Amino acid sequence: MKIKRIEIGEQMSVLDLVREMGASGVFCAGRLAKAVDIFVQMVSDPDVKVFLGLAGALVPAGLGGLFADLIREGFVDVIVSTGANITHDIIEAFGEHHERGVKGDDSELRKRGINRIYDAYVSDKAFIKFEERIQQIFKDINVEKRKNGISVCDLLNEIGKRLKDKNSFVKAAADEGVPIFCPAITDSILGLQAWLFSQLNPLKIDVLEDLHQIINIAYESKKSGAIFLGGGFPKNHILQTMLITGRGFDYAVQITLDRPESGGLSGAPLSEARSWGKLKSDANSIDLIADVTIAFPILAAAAKQRLKKDV
Amino acid sequence: MKIKRIEIGEQMSVLDLVREMGASGVFCAGRLAKAVDIFVQMVSDPDVKVFLGLAGALVPAGLGGLFADLIREGFVDVIVSTGANITHDIIEAFGEHHERGVKGDDSELRKRGINRIYDAYVSDKAFIKFEERIQQIFKDINVEKRKNGISVCDLLNEIGKRLKDKNSFVKAAADEGVPIFCPAITDSILGLQAWLFSQLNPLKIDVLEDLHQIINIAYESKKSGAIFLGGGFPKNHILQTMLITGRGFDYAVQITLDRPESGGLSGAPLSEARSWGKLKSDANSIDLIADVTIAFPILAAAAKQRLKKDV
Amino acid sequence: MKIKRIEIGEQMSVLDLVREMGASGVFCAGRLAKAVDIFVQMVSDPDVKVFLGLAGALVPAGLGGLFADLIREGFVDVIVSTGANITHDIIEAFGEHHERGVKGDDSELRKRGINRIYDAYVSDKAFIKFEERIQQIFKDINVEKRKNGISVCDLLNEIGKRLKDKNSFVKAAADEGVPIFCPAITDSILGLQAWLFSQLNPLKIDVLEDLHQIINIAYESKKSGAIFLGGGFPKNHILQTMLITGRGFDYAVQITLDRPESGGLSGAPLSEARSWGKLKSDANSIDLIADVTIAFPILAAAAKQRLKKDV
Amino acid sequence: MKIKRIEIGEQMSVLDLVREMGASGVFCAGRLAKAVDIFVQMVSDPDVKVFLGLAGALVPAGLGGLFADLIREGFVDVIVSTGANITHDIIEAFGEHHERGVKGDDSELRKRGINRIYDAYVSDKAFIKFEERIQQIFKDINVEKRKNGISVCDLLNEIGKRLKDKNSFVKAAADEGVPIFCPAITDSILGLQAWLFSQLNPLKIDVLEDLHQIINIAYESKKSGAIFLGGGFPKNHILQTMLITGRGFDYAVQITLDRPESGGLSGAPLSEARSWGKLKSDANSIDLIADVTIAFPILAAAAKQRLKKDV
Repeated sequence: MKIKRIEIGEQMSVLDLVREMGASGVFCAGRLAKAVDIFVQMVSDPDVKVFLGLAGALVPAGLGGLFADLIREGFVDVIVSTGANITHDIIEAFGEHHERGVKGDDSELRKRGINRIYDAYVSDKAFIKFEERIQQIFKDINVEKRKNGISVCDLLNEIGKRLKDKNSFVKAAADEGVPIFCPAITDSILGLQAWLFSQLNPLKIDVLEDLHQIINIAYESKKSGAIFLGGGFPKNHILQTMLITGRGFDYAVQITLDRPESGGLSGAPLSEARSWGKLKSDANSIDLIADVTIAFPILAAAAKQRLKKDV
Repeated sequence: MKIKRIEIGEQMSVLDLVREMGASGVFCAGRLAKAVDIFVQMVSDPDVKVFLGLAGALVPAGLGGLFADLIREGFVDVIVSTGANITHDIIEAFGEHHERGVKGDDSELRKRGINRIYDAYVSDKAFIKFEERIQQIFKDINVEKRKNGISVCDLLNEIGKRLKDKNSFVKAAADEGVPIFCPAITDSILGLQAWLFSQLNPLKIDVLEDLHQIINIAYESKKSGAIFLGGGFPKNHILQTMLITGRGFDYAVQITLDRPESGGLSGAPLSEARSWGKLKSDANSIDLIADVTIAFPILAAAAKQRLKKDV
Repeated sequence: MKIKRIEIGEQMSVLDLVREMGASGVFCAGRLAKAVDIFVQMVSDPDVKVFLGLAGALVPAGLGGLFADLIREGFVDVIVSTGANITHDIIEAFGEHHERGVKGDDSELRKRGINRIYDAYVSDKAFIKFEERIQQIFKDINVEKRKNGISVCDLLNEIGKRLKDKNSFVKAAADEGVPIFCPAITDSILGLQAWLFSQLNPLKIDVLEDLHQIINIAYESKKSGAIFLGGGFPKNHILQTMLITGRGFDYAVQITLDRPESGGLSGAPLSEARSWGKLKSDANSIDLIADVTIAFPILAAAAKQRLKKDV
Repeated sequence: MKIKRIEIGEQMSVLDLVREMGASGVFCAGRLAKAVDIFVQMVSDPDVKVFLGLAGALVPAGLGGLFADLIREGFVDVIVSTGANITHDIIEAFGEHHERGVKGDDSELRKRGINRIYDAYVSDKAFIKFEERIQQIFKDINVEKRKNGISVCDLLNEIGKRLKDKNSFVKAAADEGVPIFCPAITDSILGLQAWLFSQLNPLKIDVLEDLHQIINIAYESKKSGAIFLGGGFPKNHILQTMLITGRGFDYAVQITLDRPESGGLSGAPLSEARSWGKLKSDANSIDLIADVTIAFPILAAAAKQRLKKDV
């Protein structure tokens, strides 16, 4: 098929631009257009359970509200996230925020109580407020639940129900009944707060119960699709869940700047997952090597335009 | 400044999306928004000579028409390109094209006469046609010019004048009087064809004359801006040109997936160029680590929308 | 200081080569030499607790025995690893192995029961044997321990004690009393096996107890050093542990191909950790962008030669 | 074949370590070991013309002497280099040097007359000396040669003959009759100096003559091998040379941190070159994604040890 030259019109919509990229069809632009196609397919098929994996500092970069939006639109059924994205989402839900344009070297920032995440910044004060509020929330949770071992998923649901910020994806997930899994919860400030709480209060976390819950969802799904933003454990966790059912995903989109040659799963092409049976042999999938903060808003904007039209 | 969460509206224009990215302002999305700002500034200031550097297989990926468009809009004053982009642009101008969706491993492709560029393909036939037509064009060029040594820039102008495809950037450049420089012309199929021609016909290429021409442009410019798509010699060539004037660029945008740690110029951050005086100390510049096929169409679409409105 | 040209002698030892790299002192080679220096410093100071973070498919690539070796030499005090590295180490300890040189595309491999990890391969049979043996080990563990909630660290110790392969790092850690932490244990085949076991047998995993154990180690350490191979949650987990003590690491070496611009922690430069107080402001640290399978054996060989001589 | 665990012995030679990497045989370590094998094969076969491509700031990083060494050992028959590596080699040959450990931001460095190349530095004074000395050398070259058009290759030979520093690869090449090609000579400080000279003195550069010379070498070779350090135009130039003969390389080794997905030639896997006929279908080749400053000294040290033993 001929590669069509990309044309830039005036006042182009994001979807128009993505269509031009699809008509060229090659390199990363062609892959982005294909990612939109696959995303639209999996989201518009009611039989497909859509799993979203979140790794990297996506919330500090301003993407948290977009995830909340996708949840409220009904596009996402299950989330697996790093503890950091959850923590930073809750920090914003508590009224704190991330900043930009801060100057100074890292040792200087330390003295001023400012923590750096690439070119985003968050103050020590935000973490102090986080501690106050999250400890209170832990207290509010039914003590029997806490004592007997609560899954991370249920704990996050309890937290989400107590948040007020509509742009929080943790709240949106609780509102919409979308479970959030975080197998490495203790690897986050939220996890450290849970440990702190447990020093003086009854709290057990039952991570095997989380496995139970996510595997059940997988077994009950007719079809399944995965969107991996960044790699990390969310990617593996989503993939292993469908592995255990003996089926494998029908759709998958991966967006990351991680590369294959280190051999780690984060940068592994999705085709590798076919050898494991994590993806079906004929699954519709695309790997896109791109920064999530650029590629995912484009994908979301183009897909939304298509999905709304289809309605 | 607070990082604003990115919001995705319905039927968003590319410019609206870029504005959301700019309001978040961090990570690669924030840099893309800043790149649009700087591009608009340099292009809308009549005192600024805008240099565009082209490296990587941009024409096979379908971006050639976009460069032609930018030239015709008057956004670009000087181009420095790899020989490959020029060759592939002329191939398309001769009516041949690049393909996608071809199957088969590389040894098989060889047998079928198909040459691979990542996931774009071009046939041996295209090169045969290229040879016929370009040899004819060489013949048509005034023999005195050829005999005494012609600069690459003038040679490309002679070629461009003889092309008919409006979407060819080599033709657009000739039409609009935009010089194209290619210091490594012999490192391309076009260069090999020039050599072949020179075996039986008078042809001398005078690369020092090219330096003369580009340096004159630099000296005559009041201000200057650079857009680097990919790294390679086009980046260095543009930077060294302003170095020699003792001034340095006022504006610069760099889009590439090359990284700093190999120490090569392709991935070097633009701040490094300040130490050399290639950029002014107070130059307005941004490095964006992104694939050109995604980032540049967005930049072009957003910038065009702003530039048209401003008029 | 002058950059010395690298000279290659005949029959050079690895240490000699690293010294040449150190005398040039720049680019990645210079950083590798500095990584050796810092590693030697942290390992030879008896007051320093050395934390080793393992992410990426290091065991399938043949590095597992090297970690066992470092543990037995007394160079490492605490390990934080992905579940995958632990699982694959145990697979090898059970007499199964990883293969190379396998041909066939990923869908074909699936049919043949072969799972791909870049260019390493492991058969379904290895996982079947893993299941048999690990289920037996779970059974062997004292039922009281299992019932009341066992930390991952203690569970891995129980497993390690029951392994026989001297080259297993899980066994070496148990032998030498080096704790292995894995906050995302459920995100691995080992975790899935634990869940399977828990369906019919008493088993609770107490991840908050793991936090307790690792934080205690951090509090009891006079000084601390970290070696991050790959990023992932092991990097964050090690860093957050010292964060909570309010001290921060004295030494740190990071080897990864992950880059900063995605904003994720995996590729973040160590200087970023200074702003958080995870590293002391004056910590001796180096970021090395390199593949672990090349850089770490060099580092280990050079360091070992120096450490043995020093004795 | 089983992946052997890498073992670190005491006082290991570089060759021993590379053999361990080869016995594991996977990931980047396995590729490095294979690169050594292929290099040894091509260098030890007297029928093979070995082409070495140099891109990136290899000389500033301290590798220049290593190239000189390889030339004097008879391991390399043809060099294609960026103008920058040639310029910086000559700067060192003139007694100037590159520095490290310099502090200060880029704007500050500008004021102090220091130019930055990642973490290597070179002073304005070095370029002033370079100008004086190179202008004198230009003058010394026979005026008839200069007037009628000299190839870059011959010009570099004239320069090399006039250098005194044994560690200069430009000198070593002249001493040993190894031609150096640089199609983009005008894209370098050396090229700018040539232009400056040509303003007041007779000097024409005949780049088509360079094509003639390199193509003749290719035609006369029985077999051919290529070593690409970095990508850039040297990679393309070497590949296109064998393309024109209709044969293609028998051996090829590529070491770079550039990746395939931008579609540019620098990061393209060598298999892509098979589709073009630049590599023979059955060529023995390896792509290694690694930093040249680490991987090439290892390769050179290991290969040298093997080649000396074989004699």
